[in-house]
Amino acid sequence: MQQIGIIGGGGYTAGELIRILLHHPFAQIKWIKSNSQAGKFIYEVHQDLLGETSLQFTDQVDWDIDVLFLCSGHGQSSVFLSKNTLPEDLLIIDLSRDFRLKSAQHSFIYGLPELNKSAIQSSNRIANCGCFATAIQLALLPLAANNWLNSEVHVQAITGATGAGQSPSSTTHFSWRNNNLSAYKAFQHQHLDEIHQSLQQLQTDFQQSINFIPVRGDFARGIFASIYTEVDESYEQLLKAYQKYYADSPFVHISSDNISLKQVVNTNKCLLHLQKHGNKLLIISTIDNLLKGASGQAVQNMNLALGLEETAGLGLKAMAF
Amino acid sequence: MQQIGIIGGGGYTAGELIRILLHHPFAQIKWIKSNSQAGKFIYEVHQDLLGETSLQFTDQVDWDIDVLFLCSGHGQSSVFLSKNTLPEDLLIIDLSRDFRLKSAQHSFIYGLPELNKSAIQSSNRIANCGCFATAIQLALLPLAANNWLNSEVHVQAITGATGAGQSPSSTTHFSWRNNNLSAYKAFQHQHLDEIHQSLQQLQTDFQQSINFIPVRGDFARGIFASIYTEVDESYEQLLKAYQKYYADSPFVHISSDNISLKQVVNTNKCLLHLQKHGNKLLIISTIDNLLKGASGQAVQNMNLALGLEETAGLGLKAMAF
Amino acid sequence: MQQIGIIGGGGYTAGELIRILLHHPFAQIKWIKSNSQAGKFIYEVHQDLLGETSLQFTDQVDWDIDVLFLCSGHGQSSVFLSKNTLPEDLLIIDLSRDFRLKSAQHSFIYGLPELNKSAIQSSNRIANCGCFATAIQLALLPLAANNWLNSEVHVQAITGATGAGQSPSSTTHFSWRNNNLSAYKAFQHQHLDEIHQSLQQLQTDFQQSINFIPVRGDFARGIFASIYTEVDESYEQLLKAYQKYYADSPFVHISSDNISLKQVVNTNKCLLHLQKHGNKLLIISTIDNLLKGASGQAVQNMNLALGLEETAGLGLKAMAF
Amino acid sequence: MQQIGIIGGGGYTAGELIRILLHHPFAQIKWIKSNSQAGKFIYEVHQDLLGETSLQFTDQVDWDIDVLFLCSGHGQSSVFLSKNTLPEDLLIIDLSRDFRLKSAQHSFIYGLPELNKSAIQSSNRIANCGCFATAIQLALLPLAANNWLNSEVHVQAITGATGAGQSPSSTTHFSWRNNNLSAYKAFQHQHLDEIHQSLQQLQTDFQQSINFIPVRGDFARGIFASIYTEVDESYEQLLKAYQKYYADSPFVHISSDNISLKQVVNTNKCLLHLQKHGNKLLIISTIDNLLKGASGQAVQNMNLALGLEETAGLGLKAMAF
Repeated sequence: MQQIGIIGGGGYTAGELIRILLHHPFAQIKWIKSNSQAGKFIYEVHQDLLGETSLQFTDQVDWDIDVLFLCSGHGQSSVFLSKNTLPEDLLIIDLSRDFRLKSAQHSFIYGLPELNKSAIQSSNRIANCGCFATAIQLALLPLAANNWLNSEVHVQAITGATGAGQSPSSTTHFSWRNNNLSAYKAFQHQHLDEIHQSLQQLQTDFQQSINFIPVRGDFARGIFASIYTEVDESYEQLLKAYQKYYADSPFVHISSDNISLKQVVNTNKCLLHLQKHGNKLLIISTIDNLLKGASGQAVQNMNLALGLEETAGLGLKAMAF
Repeated sequence: MQQIGIIGGGGYTAGELIRILLHHPFAQIKWIKSNSQAGKFIYEVHQDLLGETSLQFTDQVDWDIDVLFLCSGHGQSSVFLSKNTLPEDLLIIDLSRDFRLKSAQHSFIYGLPELNKSAIQSSNRIANCGCFATAIQLALLPLAANNWLNSEVHVQAITGATGAGQSPSSTTHFSWRNNNLSAYKAFQHQHLDEIHQSLQQLQTDFQQSINFIPVRGDFARGIFASIYTEVDESYEQLLKAYQKYYADSPFVHISSDNISLKQVVNTNKCLLHLQKHGNKLLIISTIDNLLKGASGQAVQNMNLALGLEETAGLGLKAMAF
Repeated sequence: MQQIGIIGGGGYTAGELIRILLHHPFAQIKWIKSNSQAGKFIYEVHQDLLGETSLQFTDQVDWDIDVLFLCSGHGQSSVFLSKNTLPEDLLIIDLSRDFRLKSAQHSFIYGLPELNKSAIQSSNRIANCGCFATAIQLALLPLAANNWLNSEVHVQAITGATGAGQSPSSTTHFSWRNNNLSAYKAFQHQHLDEIHQSLQQLQTDFQQSINFIPVRGDFARGIFASIYTEVDESYEQLLKAYQKYYADSPFVHISSDNISLKQVVNTNKCLLHLQKHGNKLLIISTIDNLLKGASGQAVQNMNLALGLEETAGLGLKAMAF
Repeated sequence: MQQIGIIGGGGYTAGELIRILLHHPFAQIKWIKSNSQAGKFIYEVHQDLLGETSLQFTDQVDWDIDVLFLCSGHGQSSVFLSKNTLPEDLLIIDLSRDFRLKSAQHSFIYGLPELNKSAIQSSNRIANCGCFATAIQLALLPLAANNWLNSEVHVQAITGATGAGQSPSSTTHFSWRNNNLSAYKAFQHQHLDEIHQSLQQLQTDFQQSINFIPVRGDFARGIFASIYTEVDESYEQLLKAYQKYYADSPFVHISSDNISLKQVVNTNKCLLHLQKHGNKLLIISTIDNLLKGASGQAVQNMNLALGLEETAGLGLKAMAF
């Protein structure tokens, strides 16, 4: 069994990671560090885990582990790594945005298996992707791979409240958010950088605008993205290109029927649905923001980096309703 | 026009009060005091009011008004009144729980029109009822008026998130509360005292337990209470007694059909539905916690105390859906 | 009092119309025809109306009325009018889509007060607008009025379940729709025709595509539209143009703060919020689909056609939460 | 691998059964019969299963299987068994209510593992429990096992919309049910019979009333039951008795902290929380109605009857949010 350490165990992404790892056939959580929760049982914080584990949060760490997940939040991973000397060969998977953009300052691989599978398989530093970034990239990668992204891209993506983290705020107050909608960070969401980076990796001349309107939805989990751009190719050519691109991707599926968000909630899947309207290609892309958009993808990256079956521990029953 | 002052204008109950009073045919808001929001436009805090008022919050008050509403929260009304000398004849309606229980220390009338209409009409100190207390009392008053409450009373009441106020907390976090339920303060909710006080006002020997399980619901507005107790009388006798008790109550209606919460949401109504099962009488009681359970009832009390039509300004369109 | 007749009284839009008219200061419902519900009390079908009216549905009609609202559904209004001879001077307001597009076959005026106020004031045949069409047009009319619509328009609009009517279906089943999202009729929604017609009325050379992705939201009421297009003018110029265009429109307000859907739910308002990002103008537009998107607008049209105050009966308290 | 056949594969409980069995380590679905869906791919009906199975519905059956699940609905299982001759030793698990009550006419064992584990282990005819019945019995069995049920029992249980099945109806219409609540079948729900039967199995003199108010909740999955009765024993004695009763039950856990519904949603768990108030014992009991209340329990029963690990295939990740 691979031994796992988790830094920053009290938040949503850590909770999901723990839920997955407790049932993972080849991994075992050794310790979960949380300064604020140290001494408490895991199930006192992630209360659905009552009966599944008697592990407690700790403020002690050791490096006699195989994998370290960093779940402390944006900005804190880089601080942590600058203050601690970790074994070179320890597999580190960072769920923050600190190392997603390539830089001479670090050696992290961008952790999107459908883009960088072989690099991930041979890396021990992985920067897990952003949630919006995952949903949007999976919709566009096959186009970029064919150099078909030669027009502006229009994106609207609606996200569940868990995307905003667990600190209470005015826009995650139930009385406000229930049956409500609002847009935010239009045209300037921070995930645009990593999306551009990935698209240019496949289509080096890609310089188009991505007009992205994020919307706060009145549900807890999931991202529903509708994306369109002008493409000359026919529906059949496009469908074939998408199917080919994702032929070896166990979590991405192209649906010929229209799709809805709950088909993927509580799973690690991304479902895509394509429609051609005149010269516009519409792509609907759905993921669970906490799974394929965060902790599920982190485990998928771990599986690849450790040489395990890519789907190990990720055969999750969909919520469905 | 009656001139209105409001203390503590930033919270949920003040917001509802303002929404109602802006359309009231005989009342006009003169000032709204909020230390934290002073200087801001009302619509910057209660954002749905954009286009309806150019009033601003103030930190200044004057007593050249006809009615003062206290919306500052539990414990703060008594502090406010102890620190300020107000005109004897100023009508004060307090939305906190500070003066709901009779005491030699104050002269406030318990502001439930269906219990104390004539006292309210001749009073200028009114303690507005609690939300749960309103829903539960309206279900039981006709029984107490007939001395029929001679057995334990069983109450479960499910409340919307606005009942918990607007300060964010773990149990009002959308990610937690959405599609969730939990019980709290079982058998010991603070509203039990005012309920007992009212029932004993009508049935002086009432000593039975009221077993009350409050439940947090996954909606924003409303209280849905199911209440039962043993009563010997037949359904017909009971129905007649309820209809008689509420004959002059414009906001309480007995439905012979089964009822649902949304029939009253965004109105000042209480709907009751009776069923007799063996010797058990089941009463379903529904209100909007912010209207009949708070600000709507406050305006109803104001109307009565000022000698206005009881329903003035309260012909509110139900949400319905 | 103006006497009102309603054809097709059992559906959502008729229900909202009745709720409004019961409190309208200058109008009185004389009869409500519903073949399927004839004989039933109104409150047996629209159950929130218990205690507000003792009117019953009828299968009889007469033309000794001032206003006739047609709420029977798309396709049925034209059938009804072809089978019945109605007084020339009877004000008819049709809520279906049968007469929204100009045609030599009919004399109906397109009932968007913010576009056609004076025509509506002198007409007795009014075709009430579609719900999406209202939200989208109100976002774009000031641009068309200035001939500034010279680029593709990108629209995503999310609608509540009441938009799909009250017949149960798989996509309005609670178990499916709760916490779910899906797109439908992308690029080909039937409201596009009336939108184009109105924009061309103001900007005769308007020929641009409107790329419209409708999305089914997991809430009951409201439309939240995000719309963008390329415009050269500055934010200040645009804001001024919008304010000028809507200077005499009591229900349309420009918010300088970001807006959310619930600010308008249960009101007849449209709130607009503008942002300029590079050469893109983003417009957020929100309405209640059953009010400004249907029955509220129908009453607004009635008020104008009858020479009443435009806002009469429409001072509705927002849901807010 | 155990070979599985499923009759009536198009409904909610069949869908959940399929979701579980696709990941079960020791079971394999051989065929799924659905007359209405024959020929369609499973994922065309249970759309979240896209990418997980290429199985199709069939109208053909064979008995060369190890387990048969009957998911056709109440009344149809008995018809099916009367029309078909099945192998004596075939394990049949019926999800309808047809065989839950003991009768000389059939040999089905009541399939509540926490009551009848050893009988289930040696049976090949199992009648899976009702959803409400499971939540309520698990709250009361330890009391009955100690002959402590000597007073009326008060039960309120709130259920998700999936409990009403997938046929659309007025009370499962999203526009109606969203943010709404209503009671139904008060004091006379059909699950009371099986609850009484089980309690009398443990406490033969049990004759008390169970006052049960079912409530329709505005969420899709789960049952939240609050139950109280008079018991003399102390909290410590009661807690000890519950812990002892469930010592060998892997899916039932006693939480010393207060609990909420979502702790169990999408799992096969039942969480219980006890509070003693005077002589009243309050028990909060939560399950997922489609899992521990239906298909999860069916798999648990299958595991026991086949001699497999009781938890095999049931280590489900909680939804949590």
